[in-house]
Amino acid sequence: MGWCEMFDLIALDADDTLWHSEILYTTAQEKLERLLSRYGQDSRTAEELLQTEMQNLRVYGYGIKGFALSMIETAVRLTDGQISGSEVQAIINLAREMMEAPVELLDGVADVVATLSASHPLMLITKGDLFDQERKIARSDLASYFAHIEIVGDKTIDVYRALLARHQIDPQRFLMVGNSLRSDVLPVLALGGYAVYIPYHVTWEPEAVHGHDNTSQAYFELEHIGLLPALVDRLTQERRG
Amino acid sequence: MGWCEMFDLIALDADDTLWHSEILYTTAQEKLERLLSRYGQDSRTAEELLQTEMQNLRVYGYGIKGFALSMIETAVRLTDGQISGSEVQAIINLAREMMEAPVELLDGVADVVATLSASHPLMLITKGDLFDQERKIARSDLASYFAHIEIVGDKTIDVYRALLARHQIDPQRFLMVGNSLRSDVLPVLALGGYAVYIPYHVTWEPEAVHGHDNTSQAYFELEHIGLLPALVDRLTQERRG
Repeated sequence: MGWCEMFDLIALDADDTLWHSEILYTTAQEKLERLLSRYGQDSRTAEELLQTEMQNLRVYGYGIKGFALSMIETAVRLTDGQISGSEVQAIINLAREMMEAPVELLDGVADVVATLSASHPLMLITKGDLFDQERKIARSDLASYFAHIEIVGDKTIDVYRALLARHQIDPQRFLMVGNSLRSDVLPVLALGGYAVYIPYHVTWEPEAVHGHDNTSQAYFELEHIGLLPALVDRLTQERRG
Repeated sequence: MGWCEMFDLIALDADDTLWHSEILYTTAQEKLERLLSRYGQDSRTAEELLQTEMQNLRVYGYGIKGFALSMIETAVRLTDGQISGSEVQAIINLAREMMEAPVELLDGVADVVATLSASHPLMLITKGDLFDQERKIARSDLASYFAHIEIVGDKTIDVYRALLARHQIDPQRFLMVGNSLRSDVLPVLALGGYAVYIPYHVTWEPEAVHGHDNTSQAYFELEHIGLLPALVDRLTQERRG
């Protein structure tokens, strides 16, 4: 890191930014739909599950274990309590498969993280279940590239403000990269930081933001993470020039 | 904090050190026993649940959501899959009650934490579910007394070593206080730190340590947390004297 870099810290989200995550949830949901098809309720599963998740978010927080409990609750309700014990166990097994799934990096991630870490301190900021996120970080083989790893309960303006204060980082010299406008982009822009949005092909509905104003000079959108080092280089060049 | 204090940092465990926690688990377990009594399996519930929890710990980690999934799994197995959907929902509701339970401080905790924080930086170190622990910290009204709050996946020697390194604390000037020999005492003594063990009246079996060698000069046992400020004072006086 040199004095001439534009950012003192580059932070990256993890789920669906570094490695695939949402696909595990949608796959489990499809299996739940099939499981409930014999009760004639498969067409309502997706909608009911989402509602249950949203209602439970305040109590369970993010992560697979809360998702598992919401799947079971949805199944009990959609079957009017007729679901069998072995089917409940099958739902728990779906969640276990998710928890034990191998960590699959998105294309280009390993190279990008190695490249950026040569010029900038990197921070991984992820929300969700601590135990599960620690497992994924360990299995990702990326941990050594990150100077800091922060697992937070939620990604709000206050949480980012406290993180930056603790690490003594000026928001104007901070870049956050992620696939969620709500969690990775908007709170960071609100603090005066820079944000790069890299959409993932699936977005969990509660993370979606409709009608986002993307005219900020500190906001960038990339098609895939492979383009990130060039963007960082370009911003630094412009700053110098 | 003065140069003459013996410790640069005093850390406290949270569950069953600052506030009651295990009682929530044992109460839920008793309710599960009653729920399974109509299947004639109530006498095996405690034993089977503990086994299930131990087997799942590697995948679920600590916390109420994993406990909920283990309760459901135990109920399905003990009833040979005969458990009804509404009973499964009743088990989920037990877990929700735990998650929404008020935070009850142990006797004397509020005074002790206020007193110690006047002379030492305090750190809260707790393992378990991030979302649930953050909720409890917020509800405890104790957060402002702690200079640092660390929620970790597990409390191993490596985790303590990394924590102390990150905060630039010499283990010999570190005191850890908690109700678990396995998690709060032994790893800290192994690093050369000081540890105070304050037994809680119930210990979850996996946290129990049998035949612990308590002859270390850096090990202390107190009957209740109200005695902690006097112990810290005495150690500091001896060091000066």
